[in-house]
Amino acid sequence: MSHNSFGHLFRVTTWGESHGPAIGCTVDGCPSLIALTREEIQKDLDRRRPGQSRYTTQRQEADQVEILSGVFAHPETGEQVTTGTSIGLIIHNTDQRSKDYGNIAERYRPGHADYTYDAKYGVRDYRGGGRSSARETAMRVAAGAIARKVVPGVTIRGALVQMGPHKINRDNWDWNEVGNNPFFCPDKEAAALWADYLDGIRKSGSSIGAVIEIVASGVPVGLGAPIYAKLDQDLASAMMSINAVKGVEIGEGFNAACLTGEENADEMRLGPDGQPEYLSNHAGGILGGISNGQDVVVRFAIKPTSSILTPKKSITRSGEEVDVMTKGRHDPCVGIRAVPVGEAMMALVLADHTLLHRAQQG
Amino acid sequence: MSHNSFGHLFRVTTWGESHGPAIGCTVDGCPSLIALTREEIQKDLDRRRPGQSRYTTQRQEADQVEILSGVFAHPETGEQVTTGTSIGLIIHNTDQRSKDYGNIAERYRPGHADYTYDAKYGVRDYRGGGRSSARETAMRVAAGAIARKVVPGVTIRGALVQMGPHKINRDNWDWNEVGNNPFFCPDKEAAALWADYLDGIRKSGSSIGAVIEIVASGVPVGLGAPIYAKLDQDLASAMMSINAVKGVEIGEGFNAACLTGEENADEMRLGPDGQPEYLSNHAGGILGGISNGQDVVVRFAIKPTSSILTPKKSITRSGEEVDVMTKGRHDPCVGIRAVPVGEAMMALVLADHTLLHRAQQG
Amino acid sequence: MSHNSFGHLFRVTTWGESHGPAIGCTVDGCPSLIALTREEIQKDLDRRRPGQSRYTTQRQEADQVEILSGVFAHPETGEQVTTGTSIGLIIHNTDQRSKDYGNIAERYRPGHADYTYDAKYGVRDYRGGGRSSARETAMRVAAGAIARKVVPGVTIRGALVQMGPHKINRDNWDWNEVGNNPFFCPDKEAAALWADYLDGIRKSGSSIGAVIEIVASGVPVGLGAPIYAKLDQDLASAMMSINAVKGVEIGEGFNAACLTGEENADEMRLGPDGQPEYLSNHAGGILGGISNGQDVVVRFAIKPTSSILTPKKSITRSGEEVDVMTKGRHDPCVGIRAVPVGEAMMALVLADHTLLHRAQQG
Amino acid sequence: MSHNSFGHLFRVTTWGESHGPAIGCTVDGCPSLIALTREEIQKDLDRRRPGQSRYTTQRQEADQVEILSGVFAHPETGEQVTTGTSIGLIIHNTDQRSKDYGNIAERYRPGHADYTYDAKYGVRDYRGGGRSSARETAMRVAAGAIARKVVPGVTIRGALVQMGPHKINRDNWDWNEVGNNPFFCPDKEAAALWADYLDGIRKSGSSIGAVIEIVASGVPVGLGAPIYAKLDQDLASAMMSINAVKGVEIGEGFNAACLTGEENADEMRLGPDGQPEYLSNHAGGILGGISNGQDVVVRFAIKPTSSILTPKKSITRSGEEVDVMTKGRHDPCVGIRAVPVGEAMMALVLADHTLLHRAQQG
Repeated sequence: MSHNSFGHLFRVTTWGESHGPAIGCTVDGCPSLIALTREEIQKDLDRRRPGQSRYTTQRQEADQVEILSGVFAHPETGEQVTTGTSIGLIIHNTDQRSKDYGNIAERYRPGHADYTYDAKYGVRDYRGGGRSSARETAMRVAAGAIARKVVPGVTIRGALVQMGPHKINRDNWDWNEVGNNPFFCPDKEAAALWADYLDGIRKSGSSIGAVIEIVASGVPVGLGAPIYAKLDQDLASAMMSINAVKGVEIGEGFNAACLTGEENADEMRLGPDGQPEYLSNHAGGILGGISNGQDVVVRFAIKPTSSILTPKKSITRSGEEVDVMTKGRHDPCVGIRAVPVGEAMMALVLADHTLLHRAQQG
Repeated sequence: MSHNSFGHLFRVTTWGESHGPAIGCTVDGCPSLIALTREEIQKDLDRRRPGQSRYTTQRQEADQVEILSGVFAHPETGEQVTTGTSIGLIIHNTDQRSKDYGNIAERYRPGHADYTYDAKYGVRDYRGGGRSSARETAMRVAAGAIARKVVPGVTIRGALVQMGPHKINRDNWDWNEVGNNPFFCPDKEAAALWADYLDGIRKSGSSIGAVIEIVASGVPVGLGAPIYAKLDQDLASAMMSINAVKGVEIGEGFNAACLTGEENADEMRLGPDGQPEYLSNHAGGILGGISNGQDVVVRFAIKPTSSILTPKKSITRSGEEVDVMTKGRHDPCVGIRAVPVGEAMMALVLADHTLLHRAQQG
Repeated sequence: MSHNSFGHLFRVTTWGESHGPAIGCTVDGCPSLIALTREEIQKDLDRRRPGQSRYTTQRQEADQVEILSGVFAHPETGEQVTTGTSIGLIIHNTDQRSKDYGNIAERYRPGHADYTYDAKYGVRDYRGGGRSSARETAMRVAAGAIARKVVPGVTIRGALVQMGPHKINRDNWDWNEVGNNPFFCPDKEAAALWADYLDGIRKSGSSIGAVIEIVASGVPVGLGAPIYAKLDQDLASAMMSINAVKGVEIGEGFNAACLTGEENADEMRLGPDGQPEYLSNHAGGILGGISNGQDVVVRFAIKPTSSILTPKKSITRSGEEVDVMTKGRHDPCVGIRAVPVGEAMMALVLADHTLLHRAQQG
Repeated sequence: MSHNSFGHLFRVTTWGESHGPAIGCTVDGCPSLIALTREEIQKDLDRRRPGQSRYTTQRQEADQVEILSGVFAHPETGEQVTTGTSIGLIIHNTDQRSKDYGNIAERYRPGHADYTYDAKYGVRDYRGGGRSSARETAMRVAAGAIARKVVPGVTIRGALVQMGPHKINRDNWDWNEVGNNPFFCPDKEAAALWADYLDGIRKSGSSIGAVIEIVASGVPVGLGAPIYAKLDQDLASAMMSINAVKGVEIGEGFNAACLTGEENADEMRLGPDGQPEYLSNHAGGILGGISNGQDVVVRFAIKPTSSILTPKKSITRSGEEVDVMTKGRHDPCVGIRAVPVGEAMMALVLADHTLLHRAQQG
């Protein structure tokens, strides 16, 4: 049992606070002989990095990752490969704007973890959210970049599919659009509307929630287990562990409650290669906790950040009633940057279950 | 890592198939000196037991649990109490109707785990679903009954809040109504409508999904942890591990995506006892992964069972295309019996996190 | 974390007390399609069963194991095979001689766990040692019989190599002798001497310690890991978890402290098949935590049982000083029956590490 | 399951190689509000640091540890305290002497993990032993320094009690002598003899084994568990995970095999405070897997390092037979520096079991 580790066999342990000297993680259980460079990890980190548009926090972090252990020159090719031992990663914090945090130390921001941390631990690093800062998710993305290399046949892609009440039109879905707008939005028209909408939110000092969808294609049949190592169970755990997530669903998700057995059935035929072929994917690629060869489809809901300019009623550490308004560099829609984080969590779960499956079934 | 265990410190390991001689579980990590009788466990099991109304499977299982280990007479009072060692529980299967299963062995029922199990393991006990049968959830309920005694100050209640497209009216919510209808429905009017609706579903040999809500009151502040042992993360894992669950949400859940920071904020004031008091509970009782003292509120969606009388396209183990129709004793709305199961999973998570919190913070 | 489970991926969870209705275990993580009958398990259990000679406890337990789950007919051959789900095993206790235990409940036997259990848990099943009885080791042997089938190329054998001060003569070592005497002794001459020696111990109501050696042949290169999943580390944990074990050593063990680097080096040459061949095995088959292809050799020391006829000073639960003499059915040398238990633990560790290795390195 | 983590609730994950840029670890599960400075950790590290006498490797490492996360100013006192989140520690490597390692890359040193690593992983960082270097134990000592603060009432001390065939005279035992000689030897006379003896070993380019004893005083009754979380089991695992350890024993250890039940019994009387008092400590402070309030006594044997000047037969990676002689900076008796490492592992196990006990028994 570990409070700061994720995964069973492909296992990530993170450490670090928003405004400490550095953040980092250890990736344990990675197979050896996988080619790995810091540039590959950096590429994924750059997609998550803040300050890339006016819609994300203006905090400027280079987020340059270093590999401190666990890779070495291949004895024949000389290429940097994993050695099978623990991989240490570090990112030095660079933009810890010095300021007076005294106010934040004392006042509990409503909707933040300030009060619960204090109640549990009696102390917290309140600077920039400390350990509860979304900054921790940088290490998930870094570890996820390694996890992707453990499942080379799998393609993991994520998209923002809802911003506030505004959903995308699924008929417009184009994965190529995801990189063309600052929202990871696969619907060009929705992206244009969201730009205006989010400008309004941002200028009013407000914030808004979102829904992210992560799709893994090429997942082989057989990942997961029947009862307490279900693939969907671990995906739910993975996504719910991301800051601000309030709901997770697989395939039809909550909509499945409205369907009849006839509507929800994914019928099967034989495909051209003699392999089973499904006529629909209500299940989201998982049946009885085990992947069925279809796309694995997960969605999660992100709440709006509580860092808003409207004063809200709260209390202080010493028990006084106050109004709290949170100034500073914040994301009007934290859901945007959660897209690469969700992809990383999908990669971690799939890498982990690939090892678990191989362990038991060879 | 275990495929058949749940929990970190309060840990349940289950075994058994639907049509084997028995099912059972081991509860490990339970504190000693907790009074425990089989009747207390049986009481919770009776709420889940099938065959109690025309809306659940007509399989008749007495589901009589036996305690095989882990309890002993208190040295002073003579009362049966837990000893701190592993508690073995067993339920002998009694109604394994003998019939020809040959057909089921060969044909993959769409929407069932038949194909994925076979693809992963190459063999499965197909009788009544074998290990993937909802029968396994009886042991969750039994273990959950013990877990409730580990957190005596907490009240855990569940209700069906949506059947198919029909939601309850939350203004009608009355916990006392839950025991007055066969649906665990807290809304008397909705229960009456559902009776007619589900009769229709049942008579047509169809099935329908549902949404369950579990509420835990009296949860102290401080359960959970910031990053990968979040209380909501483990609740998501717990609920998603229940058969047929496709979505889990906490508090506002997916609706949080539609809210602004202003709308979603749970403001705080000082209560009459000098303790923090919240003016709303959008968070569902958890902030930053840690309980905040409010009701912990979880909902999960159950898909309709795939056992329906309408033939559906599928394939056989040997690669032929067939139409499959599932006769037999089944639940038109499996969500109903998932209510006590959801309560049990909530109890398991809270007992587990109570021990985890005590370990670290004394 | 579980107090009653052993293993990482091939994982055994045990339950049950000496004088309760039954003892049992769950084996989790076993690969599917392994042929398995109760008779195979029974065969190993019979080697451990008490009452087979005058040198072990006269408790008569048939120790008939039942498989309650996790096996099913192979779809083609019809042979009973593992299904990959949890295997439930049970042994009903039959010879719980009814007697007055009042005295034992109150008096702490020196050298037994009576006091520590009471101090920790405040209650214990004192009948026959309850949970601390060596009866629990029957489930290790049962699980070990399954583990052996996971590593079919490995031969695991155990022997008693020292009884009290009397060591075997290693020049006489003959594995075939192990089954010819009631001591699992590989040295015919030593066995004859031990018979007289132990008769003396037994008749005087005393007891004596022993050393057991377990040898695994055919272990492939590569099991284990460099730091905290060392093969020797898990073997030490496995053997030390057996009742009454006070020491564990690998290869040269404690004698390595007396050797120079020159004496301790296992030199290597190329074998006839082009594979490395070692000129000695001081290492006991493990280098840097990883198996090197040689025999894995483990020894462990068992203390004499504290159940002796000589009165010894002790105290009671209520704090009075008393003299305690333990009558009843006991083993003058509990080390004898520890031989099959040690073999089982070796099998569990090797099966577990086989799965771990396969997970990471394919 | 993690290959690079140790502990259940107080959990350490290490990373780093001997000649990489740095080594480090994460300490997870540490309670909050424990005062902690880097100087306290450094103090323990300085005891393990190489190059302090002519009897240890001449590698010069400052071994300056940095705390990167998990501590913060106490809200009232301003003192640096743990926050309950993961503590990241790092030591930058400074004395990675640049040289040609090509030879080492190809030749398997007998008695080293070179071959087994290569066979398992297909690649290894061979510089200075890479991950298998004893350098990793610096992080154990650092984590152990934190663990000590979790059990403030416990005193943990270690000593070298045997060097090669030369044991100390236990009648001379004086803990104060341990700091007066370069061997952590509690026997002044033995230390003097060892100095000459080890000079001989060192000058001849040979090496020798040793036995270390670790004693924990002030351990409360009740740590541990009956079956698979035995305190002695976890101590055996802890000590056997240290590089070069080949045997572990508790209390009488292997000598218990030679004792009768009468000789081995630790009789009990009532102490002046009404608490149980033992008349001897053959058990080494643990009965039935649970601490009994006496000193916990563990010994472990360290083999001689295989880095010696005498050429030994071996093979190369490419399958040629060679003679290997290991030049370089090495310890003639690696057991010496294992003393603080053994203390650290004892501290880790006791801190871990303190949390485990508190979790279950409050």
